[in-house]
Amino acid sequence: MVGLSLDDDRWPRHGGQAAALLARFGLPHDQPLIDFSANLNPLGPPAWVPERLAELAAGLAHYPDPGYPRAREAIARHEGVAVEQVLLTNGGAEAIFLTAALHPGGRAAVLQPSFGEYTRACAAHGLAVSSLAMTAPDFRLDPEAVEARLGDCDLLFLCRPNNPTGTLSPWMAVETLLGMARRQNCRVVIDEAFIDFVDAPGERLSPLLAGFDNLILLRSLTKLYTLPGLRLGYVLAGEETMRRLQDHQPPWSVNHLAAELVEDLLADEDFLVRTQAWLREERPRFQSRLASLGLEVMPSQANFCLVRQNTGPAAADALLGRLLHAGILARHTHDFSGLDGSWLRLALRGRADNDRLFAALAAEISP
Amino acid sequence: MVGLSLDDDRWPRHGGQAAALLARFGLPHDQPLIDFSANLNPLGPPAWVPERLAELAAGLAHYPDPGYPRAREAIARHEGVAVEQVLLTNGGAEAIFLTAALHPGGRAAVLQPSFGEYTRACAAHGLAVSSLAMTAPDFRLDPEAVEARLGDCDLLFLCRPNNPTGTLSPWMAVETLLGMARRQNCRVVIDEAFIDFVDAPGERLSPLLAGFDNLILLRSLTKLYTLPGLRLGYVLAGEETMRRLQDHQPPWSVNHLAAELVEDLLADEDFLVRTQAWLREERPRFQSRLASLGLEVMPSQANFCLVRQNTGPAAADALLGRLLHAGILARHTHDFSGLDGSWLRLALRGRADNDRLFAALAAEISP
Repeated sequence: MVGLSLDDDRWPRHGGQAAALLARFGLPHDQPLIDFSANLNPLGPPAWVPERLAELAAGLAHYPDPGYPRAREAIARHEGVAVEQVLLTNGGAEAIFLTAALHPGGRAAVLQPSFGEYTRACAAHGLAVSSLAMTAPDFRLDPEAVEARLGDCDLLFLCRPNNPTGTLSPWMAVETLLGMARRQNCRVVIDEAFIDFVDAPGERLSPLLAGFDNLILLRSLTKLYTLPGLRLGYVLAGEETMRRLQDHQPPWSVNHLAAELVEDLLADEDFLVRTQAWLREERPRFQSRLASLGLEVMPSQANFCLVRQNTGPAAADALLGRLLHAGILARHTHDFSGLDGSWLRLALRGRADNDRLFAALAAEISP
Repeated sequence: MVGLSLDDDRWPRHGGQAAALLARFGLPHDQPLIDFSANLNPLGPPAWVPERLAELAAGLAHYPDPGYPRAREAIARHEGVAVEQVLLTNGGAEAIFLTAALHPGGRAAVLQPSFGEYTRACAAHGLAVSSLAMTAPDFRLDPEAVEARLGDCDLLFLCRPNNPTGTLSPWMAVETLLGMARRQNCRVVIDEAFIDFVDAPGERLSPLLAGFDNLILLRSLTKLYTLPGLRLGYVLAGEETMRRLQDHQPPWSVNHLAAELVEDLLADEDFLVRTQAWLREERPRFQSRLASLGLEVMPSQANFCLVRQNTGPAAADALLGRLLHAGILARHTHDFSGLDGSWLRLALRGRADNDRLFAALAAEISP
C-alpha cells in the first residue's frame, strides 16, 4: 500500500502536476502515467500547428502590436461582438486576475464548488471572498437562492460548464442571475473556459453581452486546441469594463505565436466537428462505464467528470494512490471549496486510454 | 513636407509601432522601414533558436510546471542567488506590474526621465506616483538630491542603464540610495532590462541582494537575445518580497517555449561575447558619427542613445517625419516624463543599417 500524508500543502493546486503527487505517494518521479487530471482535448493540437509555428518563429524577433488587432478582429467575428469588446489574454488565468483587479479591496463571491483561481485572484487584489453554494446534488445554479447575497458583491464568479462538476448552468438561470446582479450593481464573471466541449453551440453566452453591461465572459483557446503551454485566452465585456481591464494588463501580455495562431485556430472548423463527434460518442460511454463500476458519477456536459465511491476522502486519496501505481493520474479535489475531497475528477481522453482507466479502476475498486 | 498633428494620443506609447506613426505622418502603411525605435540586439536571435523551438513545440500540449524549477535554477546559477529569489515573468512588463501590486493604493516615485510603464503600472494598482528628477545634463542619479523624498515612498523606480537616456547610475550611488531607502522603509525597484549591453559584467547589481532586502531587480531576456515576441523576463528579490510577488502572479504566466529556452540562452556564452565585441566597436562609432552631424548626443552605456538638434520639440517631430519618409523609424520621446519631446531615441543596429541612418540624417539635418 502507498503511504498517505494529510499535509494539505502538498496537494498540487492544479492538474497535470504529476511530480508532486508521485513524491507524495512515494513513487519514482519517472513513473509512466496517463494524465486524466488536465482537462485537455485528446484530439489536439491540430496537425497543422507545428508547421505554422515554424513559419511564425521569425516574428519572435519583433514586439507584437500591443493592441493585437488581427487576433481580436478574428475573435470578434467568431463571437459576433465588436472588436472593442475583446481583450486577448495570456491564458485564461490572466483573464481571471484582470477581472479581480477591477475591484481592489472590494467584495467578491464565488459560486462553489469551483476552480480555485477565482479565490486566489481575489485575494491577490485584496477582495474579501465569500462562497455561495450551488444547489446539490448536481450543483446547479439557483438564482433565487443567491439573490439576497448579491447586494454584498462587487464581483460574482460562475464557471460554466463548471470546473470541477461539469454542470452547465441553464441559460435562463444565468439570464435571471444577470438581471438580479445588475439591479444590485454586481458584475458577473462567467468563465466559459470549457464551453467548446458543450454539445450545443447555441449555449455560448456571448449574445447576452448586448443586454447586460455587468457581464464579463472569460474564454480559453488552449483547452479545445490542446495548447496550454502556449497561453491564450480572451475576455468579452462591455466597452467601459474593457477599458478598465486594458489599464490593468501589462503591454505585450500575449506572446507573438499565440496571438498569430488565433485566426487559424478559429478557422479550423473541421477540428471542432471532429472534437464534437468524439465527445458525442465518448462522453456517454465514459460516464456509463464509470457508473457500471459502482462509482457515483456526476452528470457532466464538459470534457471531464467527477466520480466517487461514497466512502469518504481518505478512501478517495487511497484510490488516487493506487491509480498512480497503475499508471493513471487522476485529479484530487481537496482544493475545491464545497467538495470534501471524496471526489476524483477525470478528464475524457481517447477511447484506448479511457479503456485503460476503466480496467485500472475495475482492478482497484473493492467490489 | 509631412503633416503634423499635435494630438498626443496618437503618439504610440512604445517603440516598434510603425503603423501608428506612418498614419500620423500620412505615409502608406507598407512603407519599408529600418526600425531604430525598438532597443533590440541586431545580432540575435541566436542561430540555434528556431531549431530548438521546433523541438520544444510538442511540449505546448502540456501545462508548464507553474513553479518553472529548471528555468529558475538556471537563472539562480547565472546570477549567484538562491532559486527562491527568482521569479520568472511574462516579459519585463509583467515584472513591472507585479512590483506595483506590492503596494496597492500606496505611494510611488519614479526617477525621471524614464520608461513610462512604471507610472502606468502604479496607476493600475492605485498608487499615487510622483516624479523625482535625475540630475541634468546627463540625468545621473544623485542620492542626496532625492533622500528627503524617500520617506513619502513605498516604492521607488530606477532604470539602469536608463531608458531612454542610456545613463548608468554608478554602483556607489545606487548603494547609497538603497541604504537611505531602507532607513525610510522604501522598496527600490531597479530595472536592469538593458544591463547586458553595459560593457562591464561587474555592473550587474545582483550581489547587492544579499545586503538589501528592499532591493527588487528586474531583468529581461528578450532584448539581448532579440526575442521580444517570446515574452521572457525575471525578478530577483529577497524571499519575503518574492512570496508576495508570487501571490500576485497568475499561474502559468510564462509560456512553455520561453521557459524552456532559459537554460540554453544563458549557456550561449559565445553569443554574449560576440554581442559585446559588436558594442565595443559600434557604440563609440555610432555616438561620434551622430555628433559629427551636429546633433547633441547623450553619452550612453546602453544599446540606444538620445539625440537632439537643440531646436525644440516641433523640429524633432518634423525630423521624425522626414526620417520616416527616408525609411528610418526613430523613437519619439513625447511620453517620457522629464523630456520635452525635443529628443529622439535611436537604437544601435548593425553597421550597414547604422550607415543608412547616418546618411539619412545627413540629408535631412539643415546645416
